[in-house]
Amino acid sequence: MSTGNDTLGSDQPKDEGYDLDRRLVAGILFAVDRDDKAALTTLMEDLHAADIADLLEQINSYDRTRLIRLFGREFDGEILSELDESIREEVIATLNPTVLADAVRELETDDVVDLVEDLEEPQQEAILEALEDSDRVAVEQSLSYPENSAGRLMQREVVMAPEHWNVGQAIDYMRESEDLPEQFYHMVLVDPRLRPIGNVTLGRIMGTKREVPLTDLLEETFQVIPADQDEEDVAYAFNQYHLISAPVVDGDGRLAGVITIDDAMAVLDEEHEEDILRLAGVGDESSLADRVIETTKRRFPWLAVNLVTAVLASLVIAQFEATIAQFVALAVLMPIVASMGGNAGTQSLTVAVRAMATRDLTGSNVWRVIRREVLVGLVNGVIFAVVMGVVGVIWFGSPSLGGVLAAAMVINLVVAGLAGTVIPVLLEKMGVDPALASGAFVTTVTDVVGFFAFLGLAAWVLL
Amino acid sequence: MSTGNDTLGSDQPKDEGYDLDRRLVAGILFAVDRDDKAALTTLMEDLHAADIADLLEQINSYDRTRLIRLFGREFDGEILSELDESIREEVIATLNPTVLADAVRELETDDVVDLVEDLEEPQQEAILEALEDSDRVAVEQSLSYPENSAGRLMQREVVMAPEHWNVGQAIDYMRESEDLPEQFYHMVLVDPRLRPIGNVTLGRIMGTKREVPLTDLLEETFQVIPADQDEEDVAYAFNQYHLISAPVVDGDGRLAGVITIDDAMAVLDEEHEEDILRLAGVGDESSLADRVIETTKRRFPWLAVNLVTAVLASLVIAQFEATIAQFVALAVLMPIVASMGGNAGTQSLTVAVRAMATRDLTGSNVWRVIRREVLVGLVNGVIFAVVMGVVGVIWFGSPSLGGVLAAAMVINLVVAGLAGTVIPVLLEKMGVDPALASGAFVTTVTDVVGFFAFLGLAAWVLL
Repeated sequence: MSTGNDTLGSDQPKDEGYDLDRRLVAGILFAVDRDDKAALTTLMEDLHAADIADLLEQINSYDRTRLIRLFGREFDGEILSELDESIREEVIATLNPTVLADAVRELETDDVVDLVEDLEEPQQEAILEALEDSDRVAVEQSLSYPENSAGRLMQREVVMAPEHWNVGQAIDYMRESEDLPEQFYHMVLVDPRLRPIGNVTLGRIMGTKREVPLTDLLEETFQVIPADQDEEDVAYAFNQYHLISAPVVDGDGRLAGVITIDDAMAVLDEEHEEDILRLAGVGDESSLADRVIETTKRRFPWLAVNLVTAVLASLVIAQFEATIAQFVALAVLMPIVASMGGNAGTQSLTVAVRAMATRDLTGSNVWRVIRREVLVGLVNGVIFAVVMGVVGVIWFGSPSLGGVLAAAMVINLVVAGLAGTVIPVLLEKMGVDPALASGAFVTTVTDVVGFFAFLGLAAWVLL
Repeated sequence: MSTGNDTLGSDQPKDEGYDLDRRLVAGILFAVDRDDKAALTTLMEDLHAADIADLLEQINSYDRTRLIRLFGREFDGEILSELDESIREEVIATLNPTVLADAVRELETDDVVDLVEDLEEPQQEAILEALEDSDRVAVEQSLSYPENSAGRLMQREVVMAPEHWNVGQAIDYMRESEDLPEQFYHMVLVDPRLRPIGNVTLGRIMGTKREVPLTDLLEETFQVIPADQDEEDVAYAFNQYHLISAPVVDGDGRLAGVITIDDAMAVLDEEHEEDILRLAGVGDESSLADRVIETTKRRFPWLAVNLVTAVLASLVIAQFEATIAQFVALAVLMPIVASMGGNAGTQSLTVAVRAMATRDLTGSNVWRVIRREVLVGLVNGVIFAVVMGVVGVIWFGSPSLGGVLAAAMVINLVVAGLAGTVIPVLLEKMGVDPALASGAFVTTVTDVVGFFAFLGLAAWVLL
């Protein structure tokens, strides 16, 4: 059984994987071409809003506009909130203002916050004006918290109970309440000053006798989230402590809202995307729906940084032009040393960046990890030194050239292990995201050291 | 407010971030040094099992063994199940068999499955024997599903109800039931053949009149997971459709268990770790707690592959030894072309690998994405060609050398965009994880093309 490996251009019928069916996409575009609203509506009927959003991201801008126009009033708010930021503005601009207003009014306030926070002023205004007064106030309050904070992530509807209630009172309250949230999993117990003191799951309430006090049923793991906490830390807490929902408190410790795990999971996913793209030197928010010009702009600065580091490496080589002129074999072999160093450095750096993201690399073990990386570089360096020494001797018939190659390899792999760990650690201490900037620094170090060690030793030994 | 940037060696008091306090770790190790069980127990008392597991991962093996021995009977099963696989075996071997048996008996069966599935035969046996008969059978049944499948991830305790029940019947059933699971969020409605037909949240049940049929309260989004589905697809479904829990069915479509979002979130996190480490050429399961020798072994094969690709690139250079001997400037400049190509290729490849993981790159848009990447390569290539052409002229005073450098830059950046997208797509079609193997292929292409284009053009134009 295969579930993810036949995504691309597969002719097989769809299995239980969750990829958009290629034929369905073709059928939808065919309906758009023929301006056939009935066929379009039928084909899209069973698609989840998240899948419709994916579909809109995968087709080109021209088809997207026509599809949205044809789809008309069927377009709902969920689709907007699932859409990638990069094409949200375009889609909002395409939507008929009445359709947009209806779509937005269907959404929960935390989804509206997520939707409007990255929009330009006029679009933001248009959406806020479409909301009912009470919702608009709630959205504006959320927007007053810092970007990427728990306050922006939380929903305001909370089911709470005074700490002295028993199970019976909780059940009666919920059964008599008119406006329970659509989805909730816990009752939050609060003290008289509205400070949360614990969570009780609905399941425990269901399974317990009426006279038992709620405080007997408190969940063992309970985390209170400050509203100004960074969403990255929120996601970490949910993942680390297996939370399902957690109360959010304002500056005075009073209950302000609640965050549920599905939102935390989405943040975790975004943070990972950010890390993986930053490590590869691709700016944030890159999306397949971006156009050529946006993508070029986003990647350009990283390539420019790389050009500077490459020129630095070239300047090192230029110091040894005379040596290379005498032994052209050096020019043939020198990229090997630099390349091995670059790779080993990337290995160390990725492990370090990932370990910092998961809070596994801390002040308590940083020295041990640095020592380990250096030793790993040393061991691998010695092994590859032997291999390359032999290759050098066989290929160019020169034991001293082989020796120089071997020595440079050991030096560069040790330096790679050291730089690959120390550089991200220092960047984090300086408040710079290590995923963002480490790569360029580490490669510069391994290139410069690689060329310098190899050519320098060669100049010394061979001349 | 800073929550994650002062992890390393900070002297500040702990803020609300979730890093292990460095002083606490020092205090715990001091207690271990003094063999002071009372102090150790006090210091560890408030730590969550996940934090204790992190602590054990961060200290060295000698301290770990002494800490576990001193901690003695306080050691509980949760800690084991939170521990990184790489040191689980060591910790299990350290634990007193009675403590181990007690620890394991506390765990839910799905956690036991997660614990034993990667252990060697004798340790696995020891743990299974410690379980009660019914639990052992449940664990063995789960282990009969393929590795990394939904069947291994699910818990077997499900709260289900016949589809014809109303709210009142559901409430009465739950309130009279003696053994509801510790945590559950939905009732699963099943037909007479035990096939799940929908989920009803406990919150909806709480807020609805007794006579309303449960089928009126079905959640809109409902996904049934086949027991043999890959856990990666399970995590994708939870994230895509914002599921909180989903029923798992056996081959006949009958309810076999349930997966909850916290397990899916853990899988999502692992999959990300795997992708990020594989992209960097670090084998799976690398952990900071690994020793030098294990780490070396894991990284060695990737460096060996890189060595082969680097030697391939050298063979290309070797074809042009005569040209380089005449123009040593070529040796100085050639790494720039290769390095820019390597970087641009890594950018394209990372975007493609990530987009395949999130199902955003599919048969429907693959050609458009390839075209975009090639165009981005072309535009960036032309810009950097102009820059480097000018640098070539100024540095070496040779317009033809500048022209060669510029032309090679354009060629290599276009090839990088093409190879960076096509190679991962082809690997996925062939059933190979693109994160695992793309890097080596793409770098080989950009190195070989970079050196060949630059030196070949130089030989043609300059000689």
